[in-house]
Amino acid sequence: MTTETATQILHATHSALCKHGYAELTMQDIADETDLCKASIHYHYDGKHDLLVAYLDHLYEQFEDRIAEPAGETPAERLRGLVVALVTDRSDAPAFQTALLEIKAQSPYDDAFRSRLQRFDHAFTAAVREVVAEGVADGTFHEEVDPDAVASFLTTYVNGAQTRHAAVGHPLDDSAAAVDAYIDEALRADQAASTGGGPSSETANVGGTE
Amino acid sequence: MTTETATQILHATHSALCKHGYAELTMQDIADETDLCKASIHYHYDGKHDLLVAYLDHLYEQFEDRIAEPAGETPAERLRGLVVALVTDRSDAPAFQTALLEIKAQSPYDDAFRSRLQRFDHAFTAAVREVVAEGVADGTFHEEVDPDAVASFLTTYVNGAQTRHAAVGHPLDDSAAAVDAYIDEALRADQAASTGGGPSSETANVGGTE
Repeated sequence: MTTETATQILHATHSALCKHGYAELTMQDIADETDLCKASIHYHYDGKHDLLVAYLDHLYEQFEDRIAEPAGETPAERLRGLVVALVTDRSDAPAFQTALLEIKAQSPYDDAFRSRLQRFDHAFTAAVREVVAEGVADGTFHEEVDPDAVASFLTTYVNGAQTRHAAVGHPLDDSAAAVDAYIDEALRADQAASTGGGPSSETANVGGTE
Repeated sequence: MTTETATQILHATHSALCKHGYAELTMQDIADETDLCKASIHYHYDGKHDLLVAYLDHLYEQFEDRIAEPAGETPAERLRGLVVALVTDRSDAPAFQTALLEIKAQSPYDDAFRSRLQRFDHAFTAAVREVVAEGVADGTFHEEVDPDAVASFLTTYVNGAQTRHAAVGHPLDDSAAAVDAYIDEALRADQAASTGGGPSSETANVGGTE
């Protein structure tokens, strides 16, 4: 299979997944998004499951590239770049978030999906940990901030933002604003200092969206 | 249908759901958990979907009772009672969390599920908001804490803890410890004051699990 064909099939998988969801997705739906026939997709991939695993690997490669160099000049901006990007409304939400949630829900029954999702989870946690540690080292974040704890906390929060969006329609932009406020108000040493006042104002509105 | 029969069927639905998951669940699996035959369950419920909707309503009634009077003498204890209880390991996790995630993943395609899940989301957010507001009023929490923002933040976090547990096996107890630390370190006025030191130590380890 040429790289071009592989890319075409994986892009078609993304489009078909957003249109039909995971449960109802057929190889024909995927073929319909390409100029290939179903048989030629079957020639390369055993079936829907095989193709979805390849799609998750493809998604991971893109994800890895993106989180390797989060945009932003300061650790606070890079942390925002990492976390908010995953939560911010994308053009294909909620369809993509819905498909992602279906794949997560399959994960307990499917070791291939599970190991892929664990790879995302570990990579994201590690990337957040690294940028939080940088921020602690350069004084952007409070020196007592624990990069491991914050990384796990934010990974859990991002999962929640995605699930809540797909399951009950909670706006991704609201979740993004809340995590933005958490970074500013709970982690940033410079920000907290500038708000002045007593101890209460320094820890106020943690996780808030005001 | 007697109340006893209804209760028996709903308990059986819970057991069968934990054993088989939502996608694979059959009316026979549910009948197998009772001393009724499949036909008599079908007499009361049109099918699996109808029964699952009744099960979600039943779950909601229990949930409503529990969140109406969260255990604890102080607002901080009651907030912990509300939030940590939803995250703490239950005897039937991860099976129940897996089934719950499948139902959430069906929600975008299923208005009956979606409206039920929205009811849980709104009730939980409202209960958290109320106890946070109480805590702000009596000085347990910082006066600048915004009950609406914290309620939404914690609702998102709880969704994340449940999803991450089911999808990648992240321990519920770790998520519970992190949210416990968030309550103590980011919200509590008394706790923060007692840690003393500069501004940095007062906002330290927000969301931490140390």
